[in-house]
Amino acid sequence: MTRPLRIGIAGITGRLGSLCAEEAGTELVGGLSRQEDSKRHIVTQPTLLAEMSDVIIDVSHASQVISHARAFTQAKCAWVLGTTGLAEEAQAAVEEAAQHIPVLQAANFSPALTLFLELARQLGKALPEYDAEIIEAHHRQKIDAPSGTALAIGRAVAEGRQADFNKVARFDQNSRRPDDAIGFASIRGGQIVGEHDLMFIAADEQITLSHRALDRRVFARGAVMAARWLPHQRPGLYGMSDVLKG
Amino acid sequence: MTRPLRIGIAGITGRLGSLCAEEAGTELVGGLSRQEDSKRHIVTQPTLLAEMSDVIIDVSHASQVISHARAFTQAKCAWVLGTTGLAEEAQAAVEEAAQHIPVLQAANFSPALTLFLELARQLGKALPEYDAEIIEAHHRQKIDAPSGTALAIGRAVAEGRQADFNKVARFDQNSRRPDDAIGFASIRGGQIVGEHDLMFIAADEQITLSHRALDRRVFARGAVMAARWLPHQRPGLYGMSDVLKG
Amino acid sequence: MTRPLRIGIAGITGRLGSLCAEEAGTELVGGLSRQEDSKRHIVTQPTLLAEMSDVIIDVSHASQVISHARAFTQAKCAWVLGTTGLAEEAQAAVEEAAQHIPVLQAANFSPALTLFLELARQLGKALPEYDAEIIEAHHRQKIDAPSGTALAIGRAVAEGRQADFNKVARFDQNSRRPDDAIGFASIRGGQIVGEHDLMFIAADEQITLSHRALDRRVFARGAVMAARWLPHQRPGLYGMSDVLKG
Amino acid sequence: MTRPLRIGIAGITGRLGSLCAEEAGTELVGGLSRQEDSKRHIVTQPTLLAEMSDVIIDVSHASQVISHARAFTQAKCAWVLGTTGLAEEAQAAVEEAAQHIPVLQAANFSPALTLFLELARQLGKALPEYDAEIIEAHHRQKIDAPSGTALAIGRAVAEGRQADFNKVARFDQNSRRPDDAIGFASIRGGQIVGEHDLMFIAADEQITLSHRALDRRVFARGAVMAARWLPHQRPGLYGMSDVLKG
Repeated sequence: MTRPLRIGIAGITGRLGSLCAEEAGTELVGGLSRQEDSKRHIVTQPTLLAEMSDVIIDVSHASQVISHARAFTQAKCAWVLGTTGLAEEAQAAVEEAAQHIPVLQAANFSPALTLFLELARQLGKALPEYDAEIIEAHHRQKIDAPSGTALAIGRAVAEGRQADFNKVARFDQNSRRPDDAIGFASIRGGQIVGEHDLMFIAADEQITLSHRALDRRVFARGAVMAARWLPHQRPGLYGMSDVLKG
Repeated sequence: MTRPLRIGIAGITGRLGSLCAEEAGTELVGGLSRQEDSKRHIVTQPTLLAEMSDVIIDVSHASQVISHARAFTQAKCAWVLGTTGLAEEAQAAVEEAAQHIPVLQAANFSPALTLFLELARQLGKALPEYDAEIIEAHHRQKIDAPSGTALAIGRAVAEGRQADFNKVARFDQNSRRPDDAIGFASIRGGQIVGEHDLMFIAADEQITLSHRALDRRVFARGAVMAARWLPHQRPGLYGMSDVLKG
Repeated sequence: MTRPLRIGIAGITGRLGSLCAEEAGTELVGGLSRQEDSKRHIVTQPTLLAEMSDVIIDVSHASQVISHARAFTQAKCAWVLGTTGLAEEAQAAVEEAAQHIPVLQAANFSPALTLFLELARQLGKALPEYDAEIIEAHHRQKIDAPSGTALAIGRAVAEGRQADFNKVARFDQNSRRPDDAIGFASIRGGQIVGEHDLMFIAADEQITLSHRALDRRVFARGAVMAARWLPHQRPGLYGMSDVLKG
Repeated sequence: MTRPLRIGIAGITGRLGSLCAEEAGTELVGGLSRQEDSKRHIVTQPTLLAEMSDVIIDVSHASQVISHARAFTQAKCAWVLGTTGLAEEAQAAVEEAAQHIPVLQAANFSPALTLFLELARQLGKALPEYDAEIIEAHHRQKIDAPSGTALAIGRAVAEGRQADFNKVARFDQNSRRPDDAIGFASIRGGQIVGEHDLMFIAADEQITLSHRALDRRVFARGAVMAARWLPHQRPGLYGMSDVLKG
């Protein structure tokens, strides 16, 4: 492409959406929202936004996924999808779209967390007899525990070990630790954006992988990084790790 | 005292008792045990051991405390008491003995953990609005959680805050964190001797106090340190922190 | 005082000064600066500001200290002084002023760091034979190492040990560690606001005190906390630790 | 092989050699040493040991490598080589031997450290713009800094970044950090066996990989793991990471 990239944002008035808009800078052509926002160019029709954009960062809502799949496919616009909690039918629509346009689906756009999950899988595979424990820390307002990312890390370890995550996950330490357990512990306090530690513990050594998100902007930075990469790819379903591989 | 110190150990065949015996070296005169041990001078009568010793390190069993109190008081022998889980009557016997002989009672003889509890109290007092969280890690065989030391740390923080520990202790992170909570999290793996972190978290800063026991020997070293200090004191009930103050 | 507190800020257009102004909120009556600032009430005469204020937070410049001492003493205005690098004569002027007005002098207003220094002293005193090591991390632009705060921590440990800091400080690990050394190590990267770890290491245990400044605002918050406390005190020279003691 | 594996140890009276002997257990057939050891079956001829063994763990000395290469090749015995500091000629002899027998050469047999180096390479490649910093801690007797393992980690990061390690390594933090620097910091104290942290720091996130050796036995365990794996392989030059891949 010789002309500058044009990025559209679905969900532009949300918290992550507005950070993405800032991060996109001059590449931003507008956004999709049900709310008004005097500072942004808001459109209400997905098809309209898709026609104006080379790529759309979609951080709107799971309920929009099916209609977006149709609109973006029709407009031949690349689709960076960060919405989570998709129903089966919505996921099927994403996969169908990926046959016609490049789609990147990720629960988390942090470059280092993307790597973290990949390394967790490798460590799980290579150190099957080490005790795996995951500790996460988040701000005092967070209600659920462990965090979704901590669970994703646990699933990556289980996958590396070819274990059934639901059987080995251990959320309570009040009993004897099974040999193949993957343990979880949670800390809550202050305004911690998000910290995750994955420990592999043997009697004679330990290896730990730790991630600290210091600023929510990291998720927007990653989403825009993905948006700049995706339009150059062929149709298909990509993950954030494909972006990092360059 | 011009002649060398004479240390006796009640519970000399137990795990901590035998480490204490090693640590005491040439000062050891013998021990009390129901089991035989060909390498050690074992006596079976508390009074006998007390008469041979300037000080006794007692790491035997809570059920022995009342009879020990009587025997050691009679022999005017200093008493370093590390047994935990004392019933009310046993505790009263300890306090009665302390009117006649110097008694040092401690759940834990590690010099650094002793300080830890003292600093936890100070931090609790000085930072009442910071979120307090305690994380402990122990070996994979440990069945209970959180550890007794973690609970002691929590109680020290609550004491510093003049809060009711039982009301503020929080063992489960699956709900919104109350402002004055003291949270607990546990990790289990490998052969970790014992690690404790106490965090005070505000939106703009965090302060953390961490302790790692690397070798069980640290508890024996502290007990012998206490045993060398105690015979020089007047009758009374002392704690490990008095030893550190010199 | 029944009317609301009135805070003035000397150096209001500087980085820390403007954060203090935000933090002071409605209590702010104005500031002293050589620069103009359309949003703030700027005066150019220290005496004028002092007459309008119950307390002045002074984060201006070491060269202003002598003239401020005179002006604030005359106006009977409390003085929170955060300027560092004072010449001997300036320091004498501060001490002279403290005979007439309450003065609080601190290099750092973070509540937790204030405690950190106090606890470092206690740990240094209680654990004389443990190896003390200090690690600090700051943003990639920082040119000097170790940080001033790391040095202050080292001095507090040396003070607790009644050691000569200049003799025991060790900035290079390329030789055998002397028994009484206080070692320093530095990390530089990203936009780290400031992290300090103080470790006391024995063969069988370690205790570590760690501080993380997450937001520069913590220093402004502490300065305003000091400003609210100081006008209620008698004339004298105070430190940040007096504020925490309440 | 249907009969049990037979392991020989060159350098069996050294610190690592004797740990390997313990770890090998009943598989141990004997060792090579210039010193006598009444508890072990010591031979003095490499050829003799090689003929008795399926595999030899060689933790002797760089000066022995050329003669070992010849002896083990002749006896068709697999060779696990942990000796470091090889001259060019010795290294050539190793490579020549690897055309005839399976040879595994490693500076470090810890399974987790082997992975660490591999992950360091991946992180270096995937996060080229993050600031890389390496911190290592060792016992108070260690004279050199940074540790050999810390340097190996730095080289792995540089390799991942296709950078010249000698140009980017930064051993002193007293100047402005170059963008592509790989920084080193060292801590010395107590009897720390070995700890290494590799941090990748951006303004909005950090990822850290940490390793703690808790017991020197981990190196012996890894060497014996390698010895059990190697005799089943074809001639060639292997690394510890090949063992982990299974």
